[in-house]
Amino acid sequence: MRRLRVTARSFHYDVVVGQGAWRALRRLPPYSSVFVLTERKLWNRWGKAFVRQSGLTSGPPLFVPAGEQSKSLPMVEDVASRLLKQGADRRTLLVAFGGGVVGDLGGFVASTYMRGIDCVQVPTTVVAQVDSAIGGKTGVNVGTMKNLVGTFYPPRLVLADPIVLGSLGWRTFRSGLYEVVKHAILDGPGFFHLLEARIGSLRPGQGAALESILARAAQVKVEVVSRDEREAGLRRVLNLGHTFGHALEEATAYRRFLHGEAVGWGLLAVTRLAELLGVLKPAEAGQIARMVRQVGPLPPIRDLAASRVLALLPQDKKAVGGRIHWVLPQRIGKVKIVNDVPLQLAATALREVQRGPDPSVRG
Amino acid sequence: MRRLRVTARSFHYDVVVGQGAWRALRRLPPYSSVFVLTERKLWNRWGKAFVRQSGLTSGPPLFVPAGEQSKSLPMVEDVASRLLKQGADRRTLLVAFGGGVVGDLGGFVASTYMRGIDCVQVPTTVVAQVDSAIGGKTGVNVGTMKNLVGTFYPPRLVLADPIVLGSLGWRTFRSGLYEVVKHAILDGPGFFHLLEARIGSLRPGQGAALESILARAAQVKVEVVSRDEREAGLRRVLNLGHTFGHALEEATAYRRFLHGEAVGWGLLAVTRLAELLGVLKPAEAGQIARMVRQVGPLPPIRDLAASRVLALLPQDKKAVGGRIHWVLPQRIGKVKIVNDVPLQLAATALREVQRGPDPSVRG
Repeated sequence: MRRLRVTARSFHYDVVVGQGAWRALRRLPPYSSVFVLTERKLWNRWGKAFVRQSGLTSGPPLFVPAGEQSKSLPMVEDVASRLLKQGADRRTLLVAFGGGVVGDLGGFVASTYMRGIDCVQVPTTVVAQVDSAIGGKTGVNVGTMKNLVGTFYPPRLVLADPIVLGSLGWRTFRSGLYEVVKHAILDGPGFFHLLEARIGSLRPGQGAALESILARAAQVKVEVVSRDEREAGLRRVLNLGHTFGHALEEATAYRRFLHGEAVGWGLLAVTRLAELLGVLKPAEAGQIARMVRQVGPLPPIRDLAASRVLALLPQDKKAVGGRIHWVLPQRIGKVKIVNDVPLQLAATALREVQRGPDPSVRG
Repeated sequence: MRRLRVTARSFHYDVVVGQGAWRALRRLPPYSSVFVLTERKLWNRWGKAFVRQSGLTSGPPLFVPAGEQSKSLPMVEDVASRLLKQGADRRTLLVAFGGGVVGDLGGFVASTYMRGIDCVQVPTTVVAQVDSAIGGKTGVNVGTMKNLVGTFYPPRLVLADPIVLGSLGWRTFRSGLYEVVKHAILDGPGFFHLLEARIGSLRPGQGAALESILARAAQVKVEVVSRDEREAGLRRVLNLGHTFGHALEEATAYRRFLHGEAVGWGLLAVTRLAELLGVLKPAEAGQIARMVRQVGPLPPIRDLAASRVLALLPQDKKAVGGRIHWVLPQRIGKVKIVNDVPLQLAATALREVQRGPDPSVRG
């Protein structure tokens, strides 16, 4: 079990990764009440174990439907009403037990309920454990705009036990690995080569074998957000692969890809773009592309018109004043942010990746 | 014109009170775009002057309907959608031009739109100028619960020009004076006696005569929030008169009183309560009560069953774990927070005030 610490100017909190992480809840100070926000299926599978390990005395959990549509302001209103009805006050603790949807929604509710109550994130997917549950970004969607309304709000604790990944579907699990790959590219050769050696054999059920990989990936996020709590600059490196990724998700109305899969394609495209720009050496570009492809098959993108995908790029809200900030790998362990990439070159990179080797073929 | 400064651990901002305050907007750094959130009537009356003085180049204002019902999550969604459609990004400035409703809603939208954009508060009522626009509390209502969802989010600037009070109705104007009285009680004999001498002659149109009173009242709020940005302790003194006040508002479904009027009654009742408890000397209790009554007539409360009002006290969300924190005047310039007041005594105080001299009779 690893205990990592996010330290920012005005707050700090621990991220505990590993088997038995949930026990860390026992060391929190007392609250007037505790509520768990979660999804029914997930809670049916893991709720008992969580309650036993965490020692929590809480009322019945607050269930929200699985899926992105729960990240909405009407759902915020609904959850806040239920909290109020059940007596939650300013000293209540909200535990967000779930993947990205529950984490983003729960974090937002906690950050705004009575102007802010404590929140513990208990991420249950790979993406949430190594990325989204760490860093205090919360949000809900408005219309088709992801996270248009949200907050920066540090959780009190993040508790990531890989045991819960055992009930993930194979595709969902793999989808999270693309974010792990992203973190390895950001981190450097040490983690990258460790991951390279293991990526092909990682499986949802392997609690212990996964633990060191997940902890290391989480550490990358912890370090970045510790240095940039409000996404003023450095934190943008975490968007590696996300610029193309978001555009691909939008181009397919968020129906074709799991988020991580879009990031997988995004990593391939931006790696090729960096190579075309002469920013990244072909050898390292090849290493990155091989690693991404090793994760497994990705939904097809050949049918998508590159021009249409490109047109969706500036709608990324990370783009300030219409510019696109590209996060380009410069070498393994180093990225570079530029905002003057010719769109034509981005189109070329995307088209080459679209025509390239089918990533469903390993190695 | 007075320039006050809110200073907290992690931020500071200026509160400019006086004629010409809007000009301070000219000294802000450039934004990618500026949007004004306001009410149509108010903007029709003051919009041109505001644009001229502030030098703002902004698109058409975002109008919200006047009234409390605009403080809602559906309205947050609506405003956020309109901002997005009109191209607002992370470097947009939102100006909340209005009273408490626009200020609370606008502050909340600004604090959550793309996880936080800059907000300038331009309060246009007495309550907003001396109280609600200062301190960074934002919020919207959920069901009948006021401000159940909100944030602490410091504005970039607060610009209070008394000129806009000229278009306030006499009742709305007076309602704000109860908050001014509250601040004078908190502040001490100097401000209290100044206000005592002038309270009977204050009128909406008196820009200059009002200015020194408003600035002094705003200063009280500035000092309190500077020492307690997140309502951890000290800031609770601002609830003077609000415990009874909220209960009265709830007991009448928020239909009978303007907020300040309920606070007026609340001040009378809590002053009597402090006197009954032996916390406040009768002479000073008399001074406070006279001052409150001098503001003008209040809507009647004789018909309200004290027991019913009392039953609504614990629903005040300021009450942690069911307790009621009473802010009791101890003398002019000093309050005391206690949470063990026998409810019966609170009922007695309220009943005596209900039966007491009609506050519509001056002096």
